[in-house]
Amino acid sequence: VAVACPLITIGIVRTDRHVTEATPVQSSLNPSEQGTIEIAEEFAAGLTGLDGFDYAWLLTWLHGPDDNREQPPPLIHVPFLLRPQRRRMGIFATRGPRRVNPIGLSLVRIIEVSGRTVRFAGVDLVDGTPVVDLKPYVTHFDRVDGEVRSGWFDDVPLPAAVTPAQLGRPETDPADPSV
Amino acid sequence: VAVACPLITIGIVRTDRHVTEATPVQSSLNPSEQGTIEIAEEFAAGLTGLDGFDYAWLLTWLHGPDDNREQPPPLIHVPFLLRPQRRRMGIFATRGPRRVNPIGLSLVRIIEVSGRTVRFAGVDLVDGTPVVDLKPYVTHFDRVDGEVRSGWFDDVPLPAAVTPAQLGRPETDPADPSV
Repeated sequence: VAVACPLITIGIVRTDRHVTEATPVQSSLNPSEQGTIEIAEEFAAGLTGLDGFDYAWLLTWLHGPDDNREQPPPLIHVPFLLRPQRRRMGIFATRGPRRVNPIGLSLVRIIEVSGRTVRFAGVDLVDGTPVVDLKPYVTHFDRVDGEVRSGWFDDVPLPAAVTPAQLGRPETDPADPSV
Repeated sequence: VAVACPLITIGIVRTDRHVTEATPVQSSLNPSEQGTIEIAEEFAAGLTGLDGFDYAWLLTWLHGPDDNREQPPPLIHVPFLLRPQRRRMGIFATRGPRRVNPIGLSLVRIIEVSGRTVRFAGVDLVDGTPVVDLKPYVTHFDRVDGEVRSGWFDDVPLPAAVTPAQLGRPETDPADPSV
């Protein structure tokens, strides 16, 4: 397993959220709340043409300052949305931030592109999250029509703007004897 | 601009394609061709539960062995699908591989998850491409309904299984005096 893919931070996300436990778990569940992406001056020209799109994929780096990458997260753990059931799932069957490579994938609605700033709706990130890429949402490439199985997500409620804290205590909470 | 996000290769993509110029540009344009993802043994447990999903986001590292990361690609260039028009676009308004961080995002259909191998349909990657993440496609999170503007993609043909070579010569081709 090679470690040979260094990422460059191309910008930063600005939102009114500051703690992951109190931040909605998915942008589509929190589609009205707005934030901004500030692309670094040296990369701002790369935004040319983005204003023609209604949506974009925002790729971010979800590694918090207190996370330890020397010790990767467990490969099977309780994702936010399965906290009520205390049910574990493989990390590649979850959308949560605890992954081998903590790359976030947020589908955001583009409101305005102005200079090096992108105003968007659909906040699921804390303020200061580093941006590693931005790709346009292309209906012809990204929309899957018809009935699609979405695994365990088909069996759980997906409440609007739900936060991890509202779903229960973390798996590793030492105060919780059930895990 | 910090460079502090080292990626770990979690696996490798196996396909029958070997040259980017002769590989379809998007999985959705080449939905029948099959490939496999081989997850490294140490991360295979993370696949638990993925077989309940019909689709997944395959995140890859598109940095070829001959690419020079010391000199990043131009921020505005001609993407594959605009080669016929020789039209330039900002990299964050394209889905091509030449990006500040060459992370690929392929929407693939899951055919079978078996041990540490995922068989999929929708090939837009060359054999040997490193995998950096795998996320389930969740209809409730990822589908945008209704009319959505997809920028310049709305104005160009998106032929089935089209390859870069079929779209014209690369922008940097010294034999092409038009660029």
